[in-house]
Amino acid sequence: MPQFNRILLTGAAGSLGRELRSGLAHLTTHLRLADRADMGTAAAHEELVQCDLSDPEVGMEITRDVDAIVHFAGVAREQSFNEIMTDTIPGTYNMFEGARKNGVKRVIFASSIHAVGYYRLEEVPDTRQPHRPDSFYGMAKCFGEDLASLYWNKFGVESVCLRICSALDAPKERRNLWSWLSFPDTVRLVERSLTAPRTGHSIIFGTSANSMQAVSNAHATHIGYDPQDTADAFRDEIEAQPLADHESDLVRNVGGFFTNFPHPDDAE
Amino acid sequence: MPQFNRILLTGAAGSLGRELRSGLAHLTTHLRLADRADMGTAAAHEELVQCDLSDPEVGMEITRDVDAIVHFAGVAREQSFNEIMTDTIPGTYNMFEGARKNGVKRVIFASSIHAVGYYRLEEVPDTRQPHRPDSFYGMAKCFGEDLASLYWNKFGVESVCLRICSALDAPKERRNLWSWLSFPDTVRLVERSLTAPRTGHSIIFGTSANSMQAVSNAHATHIGYDPQDTADAFRDEIEAQPLADHESDLVRNVGGFFTNFPHPDDAE
Amino acid sequence: MPQFNRILLTGAAGSLGRELRSGLAHLTTHLRLADRADMGTAAAHEELVQCDLSDPEVGMEITRDVDAIVHFAGVAREQSFNEIMTDTIPGTYNMFEGARKNGVKRVIFASSIHAVGYYRLEEVPDTRQPHRPDSFYGMAKCFGEDLASLYWNKFGVESVCLRICSALDAPKERRNLWSWLSFPDTVRLVERSLTAPRTGHSIIFGTSANSMQAVSNAHATHIGYDPQDTADAFRDEIEAQPLADHESDLVRNVGGFFTNFPHPDDAE
Amino acid sequence: MPQFNRILLTGAAGSLGRELRSGLAHLTTHLRLADRADMGTAAAHEELVQCDLSDPEVGMEITRDVDAIVHFAGVAREQSFNEIMTDTIPGTYNMFEGARKNGVKRVIFASSIHAVGYYRLEEVPDTRQPHRPDSFYGMAKCFGEDLASLYWNKFGVESVCLRICSALDAPKERRNLWSWLSFPDTVRLVERSLTAPRTGHSIIFGTSANSMQAVSNAHATHIGYDPQDTADAFRDEIEAQPLADHESDLVRNVGGFFTNFPHPDDAE
Amino acid sequence: MPQFNRILLTGAAGSLGRELRSGLAHLTTHLRLADRADMGTAAAHEELVQCDLSDPEVGMEITRDVDAIVHFAGVAREQSFNEIMTDTIPGTYNMFEGARKNGVKRVIFASSIHAVGYYRLEEVPDTRQPHRPDSFYGMAKCFGEDLASLYWNKFGVESVCLRICSALDAPKERRNLWSWLSFPDTVRLVERSLTAPRTGHSIIFGTSANSMQAVSNAHATHIGYDPQDTADAFRDEIEAQPLADHESDLVRNVGGFFTNFPHPDDAE
Amino acid sequence: MPQFNRILLTGAAGSLGRELRSGLAHLTTHLRLADRADMGTAAAHEELVQCDLSDPEVGMEITRDVDAIVHFAGVAREQSFNEIMTDTIPGTYNMFEGARKNGVKRVIFASSIHAVGYYRLEEVPDTRQPHRPDSFYGMAKCFGEDLASLYWNKFGVESVCLRICSALDAPKERRNLWSWLSFPDTVRLVERSLTAPRTGHSIIFGTSANSMQAVSNAHATHIGYDPQDTADAFRDEIEAQPLADHESDLVRNVGGFFTNFPHPDDAE
Repeated sequence: MPQFNRILLTGAAGSLGRELRSGLAHLTTHLRLADRADMGTAAAHEELVQCDLSDPEVGMEITRDVDAIVHFAGVAREQSFNEIMTDTIPGTYNMFEGARKNGVKRVIFASSIHAVGYYRLEEVPDTRQPHRPDSFYGMAKCFGEDLASLYWNKFGVESVCLRICSALDAPKERRNLWSWLSFPDTVRLVERSLTAPRTGHSIIFGTSANSMQAVSNAHATHIGYDPQDTADAFRDEIEAQPLADHESDLVRNVGGFFTNFPHPDDAE
Repeated sequence: MPQFNRILLTGAAGSLGRELRSGLAHLTTHLRLADRADMGTAAAHEELVQCDLSDPEVGMEITRDVDAIVHFAGVAREQSFNEIMTDTIPGTYNMFEGARKNGVKRVIFASSIHAVGYYRLEEVPDTRQPHRPDSFYGMAKCFGEDLASLYWNKFGVESVCLRICSALDAPKERRNLWSWLSFPDTVRLVERSLTAPRTGHSIIFGTSANSMQAVSNAHATHIGYDPQDTADAFRDEIEAQPLADHESDLVRNVGGFFTNFPHPDDAE
Repeated sequence: MPQFNRILLTGAAGSLGRELRSGLAHLTTHLRLADRADMGTAAAHEELVQCDLSDPEVGMEITRDVDAIVHFAGVAREQSFNEIMTDTIPGTYNMFEGARKNGVKRVIFASSIHAVGYYRLEEVPDTRQPHRPDSFYGMAKCFGEDLASLYWNKFGVESVCLRICSALDAPKERRNLWSWLSFPDTVRLVERSLTAPRTGHSIIFGTSANSMQAVSNAHATHIGYDPQDTADAFRDEIEAQPLADHESDLVRNVGGFFTNFPHPDDAE
Repeated sequence: MPQFNRILLTGAAGSLGRELRSGLAHLTTHLRLADRADMGTAAAHEELVQCDLSDPEVGMEITRDVDAIVHFAGVAREQSFNEIMTDTIPGTYNMFEGARKNGVKRVIFASSIHAVGYYRLEEVPDTRQPHRPDSFYGMAKCFGEDLASLYWNKFGVESVCLRICSALDAPKERRNLWSWLSFPDTVRLVERSLTAPRTGHSIIFGTSANSMQAVSNAHATHIGYDPQDTADAFRDEIEAQPLADHESDLVRNVGGFFTNFPHPDDAE
Repeated sequence: MPQFNRILLTGAAGSLGRELRSGLAHLTTHLRLADRADMGTAAAHEELVQCDLSDPEVGMEITRDVDAIVHFAGVAREQSFNEIMTDTIPGTYNMFEGARKNGVKRVIFASSIHAVGYYRLEEVPDTRQPHRPDSFYGMAKCFGEDLASLYWNKFGVESVCLRICSALDAPKERRNLWSWLSFPDTVRLVERSLTAPRTGHSIIFGTSANSMQAVSNAHATHIGYDPQDTADAFRDEIEAQPLADHESDLVRNVGGFFTNFPHPDDAE
Repeated sequence: MPQFNRILLTGAAGSLGRELRSGLAHLTTHLRLADRADMGTAAAHEELVQCDLSDPEVGMEITRDVDAIVHFAGVAREQSFNEIMTDTIPGTYNMFEGARKNGVKRVIFASSIHAVGYYRLEEVPDTRQPHRPDSFYGMAKCFGEDLASLYWNKFGVESVCLRICSALDAPKERRNLWSWLSFPDTVRLVERSLTAPRTGHSIIFGTSANSMQAVSNAHATHIGYDPQDTADAFRDEIEAQPLADHESDLVRNVGGFFTNFPHPDDAE
């Protein structure tokens, strides 16, 4: 008997969404899936809704009769101010607002390392230090985290903000030696966030069990996340690559190359 | 010889704007004033621009040839999500973006206690603790502070975020015994923020020299703010009022009655 | 019109009690005074109750129809384990329990520096560090502070624990250059603790405005305590005394000579 | 050759006491066992003393010729103020006082999570934060910890206060996913506390190696405690139980259902 | 009757030395003065010793029969590695070693802001954060502070390390608005450091009572330093100077222009 | 293809040097080895230079064409002030200065627990707390760490300071239960320090994966050090030794017996 009756998963057609679609199935009787893109064929326990979450009515409708929301819509790339204001942030807002109005108990929000991307590696930031966004993408994540705080303190909606670092099928560059989050660990992280007895408004970094860690979950142990994969297995392969200059934006800050992106208006 | 050639002051027709209009005059050769409302007659050193700052072109135009921006547009009241998304936040964004494009050195941003309104009084939060917004108004201030962080780290625009507590002509209720910021102290706070040798991305609480303090500027002393007024002089008068219940939202949190506001969509 | 209808002051015949008896009169219509010793003649606004507070029935009776309790019974001297268990602690317990049962809103508890007496001077402990009692007297204060915490968290009784340092008519020894609390400042400290809008469970050190401070109220500013006296005026006189050895118990720890007391069972 | 000549274990007839009776045997030539209840038959290396530890003479006698005391007397249930004052606390005091007078080097004191039960789960309190008792039972533990501090600083008696969370044969409810302490890990915890080269006055939380941790031993690593069991193995079974409301006292605070107990005088 | 019988003041011919020579006279029956340079004529209470403190025998001789050492020899300018190794550090070592061998109770060591010069202004470092030297001059100060730590912990010699900021007759540039230490306040700082009941190994920043503070003495209040002068009086005059670029080494770090010095071997 | 073209290893004839000589070989095409003592025969990839590093010309020469320096010269024993001033510190300085002039990217400096030896075990110091040297040997390590800070902040030379605890072939005494660093873990520690993407100025404690830890690497996880050995395997053997008095210098402080050493001038 699954712990949940119905979970809503947004961004279900994305790379992480596909992993979660199968990985979370055992937790819930019904799994509602939402995405702008086509999501293929629905399994018996699945409800597929192709839609635009930035539309408030869609948001209200899709969160009905749901126990928990796993909000993974969106991709990790820089966005313009306009885009985050008319699309990304409204999508997130509609999820929290739907949760409030429809009595959904908990929201798992895919935040990002880019909400704090300007901490230097050797600072090893933890989940209680203030934001240092490295991009407009990161600004949208900051907004989502603050919204989670507001909806918890004022409206009693629980949440976990997952500061996903580098969710990839395998580590690809030296930075991933600390930042890698394997797909199975992504599923574990979401599963623990859904089933933890109490989260209030919690923030947790999403990395695998890598020996190298440039962020700290010392204050997030109450979630019970226990990663099983590690980038260490890829070390030899990766260290065959040349070392980048330690002062380059690529390695200097935990946000990596996002700190290197120009202002979207200046980029072509 | 004033220290600045041209300062832009937004929200110049508001109650704090009027104080700053006269209070900052001695610092600058030219004072550009902006507001949606009528600002009366321009003095010799003044340039009056009645305009809507949420328009990007206006923002770009009005920040031209400016040394520093004092962004006080907006009033301290709860706003709907829609309003902050289409008006308040774009107005703030346009100021930072104008500063970046036009080479303005520093932005003084009127943030608010409501960016951290859910700290309890006895926690005495300082300027290095994370956001705890108490309202959508507070959400817009959180966004502004994070934007200031991004524009400093990525684009080198300096800023001071003033978390104004209760800027009033006189303390009116018990909460004001710690939260009061007199008008002259508001001017002092902005003046010091403009003239401090270096601010990077700084945050400072705005209260007068009240004996009672529920927020801490222990990490903001580099601004050199030295308030001269105090709510203590009003204590007898104020303490003639009955004590509110300590558990009521009115006194429990530093955000005071803002934590009491319903969701704007639910309010009529 | 006083802010309180009836305040209970215990230990009213003691040296601090006498100061508070007159000093708090303006705050309350009725002032109930309790002590084991004779308290002289009652003024029109006073109710005198000579009694033993360690008797639960006395405790319940004396806290009836009271708005706030100022619990100053007891003197600052080492006590035996037996004495704190049968007299001091029960007296304190009866005050909190009376507050709970009779709906008293706030308890001001005369705690002491001796609850944390084993911090060294150069550690400058603040109000958020754990106990380090220096005596059985200090143990009784630790118990009172923890009781205040329990009664706040569980039963909603507010409190302020005053860690009184050296309440004397004048500084007498070098240690008093930091530890002195004048009698008028004692009254100010209690007054602010009674009238602060919200205290929850708060702890504050009680010293005058001495330049030298070996304890920190950085996290207790929400009480609004603003001392007016200072030991500095007595410096010349006091520094005519020879310096004690810096390693002697007398100056090494903030508890001063209490850390020097032998176990009460070993003392004659 | 065992490391200790004689260890005293109190509460030897209790559930943890029985585990320790066998588990500590290899550490000591003589094992003195004390309890109010019958403890069965003494093995060759055992000395059985059925007695009341709240009697000072008993306390003095039973700690004679002892190298270390493992004080586990008492059960984890709420108690009245009277009971802790006349029985629980005196029992603990007599152990420390016996240690002082008889030259016992170290006391291992079974404290409890209920000394800090009012921290919320997501605060993940560590061993350097102040007390927040959730019950009178917790008050007795707070007293014991402060006594340990006094006896270390003043009289040189070393101690380790074990804040035992949920010592059970197996996890039974969702809270135990973080709070469980297996019986073998209880033995390991006591063993390491006894044999650590130096403890001074140390505090450590007692949980098994559960992935979920709502308390932090980050500052207690010098004890060398290395738990081998984990509640994770029981997760599926336990998560078949419904989630409690996150705001219920049962899950809100680390003290769990103890925060839910009424005042003992009000309970029947 | 002065508190000290004999104080040794080194660097007595320097600008601060001359202030201290007269300012400390009232504290001591005999004032021994040392410098490489000529110190003029000795007053009745003075003993003048023109000498080289880097000579161990001189160090041992000059600290004989002394109660306290005020070690101000040296000037605030960058030095070569060779110079600090053969002159500055040996001079400091000889003072501590003389104190140890001759039973001198306390050493007041003129350290410098340049021991932590690489903290940024907005970090507002306090006295418990680690070193960040900005020069070889700063390295010599770091060594002196660590030596003070060693001599306290191992040999029981008390000390106060004064991290002097900008000791000048008047503020001269914008940086001095926070960094200025007036000459009279220098004397006050040394006086309090000499007469504080206990210092152990203490560190304190030396600035006047300027509104702007880029360093924090929050943990050094036990010294009792109470500055009476302020750079605020010079603000208008100083702010007539143009603002430096906030990213220039001159204003970026608390060490100011020292962070700008090239390596001494590269400078001509 | 090794990651480095040429690494310089100093102290190559010492016990740790010999381990590193073989352990680092796979990382580098050329391994330059330096020591005062004879280093035997050079392998094909090795360059042997018997020399005195305290000579500046030697230092400049030997760091030429080098990618990284592993500075392990020196042995862990107390030294006189003279020795550290004329030999140990100059040797370290010459390495950093050679790195600066010759463009070497990173220096791995063998610092020591004795730079912070006066923290008590139960304080469990981390890498962000200030120095507390326990010896002149420790003073030389403090100087090296501060030099690393200066060369990073001012000259952009990266470094990792390894605070080696007890590098031994096997644990020998109870203290080693927390302090032991195995030889293979020493190699792992240096390897990770060399290959971490960015270190800036980092400090890390060097111990194996012992259950007992009296120092904390919580802020040094970005190095990626992952020890594989543990002193736990030696526990039974070691605990057959008698416990030392907990107040003896041997166990009281993390510096162990170094805190017990007399001043070198007093020792014969």
